Amino acid sequence: MHDMADGNGPVDSEDLDALPPIESELEPGEPQDPPLPDLQIPEPGRTLSAVSIRVGPDADFVDLLVRLREAGADVVSVNSFPATRGEANVDRVLDVEFRDLDGTIAAAAVRDAPGVVVAEARATLGQIFGKRVIIIGGGAQVAQVSLGAVSESDRHNLRGERISVDTIALVGEKNIANTVRAVADLPRAHILVLAGSIMGGEITEAVKEIQAAGIPVISLNQVGSVVEVADLVVTDPVQAGTMAVMAIADTARFSLDRARGRRF
Amino acid sequence: MHDMADGNGPVDSEDLDALPPIESELEPGEPQDPPLPDLQIPEPGRTLSAVSIRVGPDADFVDLLVRLREAGADVVSVNSFPATRGEANVDRVLDVEFRDLDGTIAAAAVRDAPGVVVAEARATLGQIFGKRVIIIGGGAQVAQVSLGAVSESDRHNLRGERISVDTIALVGEKNIANTVRAVADLPRAHILVLAGSIMGGEITEAVKEIQAAGIPVISLNQVGSVVEVADLVVTDPVQAGTMAVMAIADTARFSLDRARGRRF
Repeated sequence: MHDMADGNGPVDSEDLDALPPIESELEPGEPQDPPLPDLQIPEPGRTLSAVSIRVGPDADFVDLLVRLREAGADVVSVNSFPATRGEANVDRVLDVEFRDLDGTIAAAAVRDAPGVVVAEARATLGQIFGKRVIIIGGGAQVAQVSLGAVSESDRHNLRGERISVDTIALVGEKNIANTVRAVADLPRAHILVLAGSIMGGEITEAVKEIQAAGIPVISLNQVGSVVEVADLVVTDPVQAGTMAVMAIADTARFSLDRARGRRF
Repeated sequence: MHDMADGNGPVDSEDLDALPPIESELEPGEPQDPPLPDLQIPEPGRTLSAVSIRVGPDADFVDLLVRLREAGADVVSVNSFPATRGEANVDRVLDVEFRDLDGTIAAAAVRDAPGVVVAEARATLGQIFGKRVIIIGGGAQVAQVSLGAVSESDRHNLRGERISVDTIALVGEKNIANTVRAVADLPRAHILVLAGSIMGGEITEAVKEIQAAGIPVISLNQVGSVVEVADLVVTDPVQAGTMAVMAIADTARFSLDRARGRRF
């Protein structure tokens, strides 16, 4: 994974016979929508790295973070897992992602800390899985939006991007509203598609809240007030998924700002 | 979201007219496969909570974690976001998930810390998005596996579970192998489906590594050595997605152990 350590994401040159073309809705030179700022997505010229630390009971979570910080890391994410590999003296795995420090240096900075059994540099989840399209709604429609989004993301990932398509099938106004709100807390979520047939009430309020946090929302054309607040309303679920990917792809020139409020 | 604060996940009783039936492959009373241990998935009888902390430049990341720990929290996840709501004096948002402490008490424990503008209890991502099925491969096949998995997860989520279906479409042995390895670092990932037509070599090594970490792997029937190591090989992509969900659902009695090595 060391080819990803520059934070610019991997490009598999075997699969790129030509320069990546840009899909265009905008005129050349016309500014695109500014991307959602995201500490966990690679940026050119900025180091983004991760370290996986396998620890025993003597390890001090906070001590490890202090050591990383003293080495220069700006920690952006921590995830803790139970040890499942059966390694001696390991009961937890801590994955820490940070900016401004190389992963190999970070691993060396924590390797001698009490309780640390193994510390090694890793690619970050943002380098591997990239920006996320989130699809919420009913099973049949989520599946069709996902089909469009997965197919379109394939085309962009072939050109060196990393876009993943993540879904949850749910029922009930309150359940869906709570889930929409939680999209703002979901790492690397850059756009939401609401794949339902009737969504309004508390869901509409939740949509406004996540739009205020910078996450655009595409809605299928449907009954309920959600279509009145969505950034874009699309009738065909496959096209809704496709447009969601185009809206966040660096290799597409599709402006939600220019399409905002239109129905397709 | 307070109805989720007991860590048992939400049940929308409006949509449940009957007791949830259990889908069965096993005989009644026959033990199921043990679930993958996961600190971020709700467990009956164990408190799992989150706090969202919106902070300014004076806030000290480590100080906040120390305060939470002193209040009794076992921190299992931290995610940091740039502030995007335009609130005065807020430049970052820290979402912290922990066990053994109520979210409201946790919010009170950090509210007076330097730099903290707002601290509020939240549902955890595990309570909202639950266990994750991960699908990796080529766009056309990822989309079909996703269709099966989303449709099947819908049936289980209707009965109170939370299972989400997350995908990435990729090409290239090295890219895919690195991504398979990273599934072990992905929070709440409980099963992987490889949706391709030719996968082997380094991908097969990566599959063995994540199996050793406790994550089962279903492979489409395909060219390459991946099918020799997969826990299950399935020809129909829709069925592969369906089986992946059944294998991790609490409301299904489907044992990968009993099916291991078989081809469908």
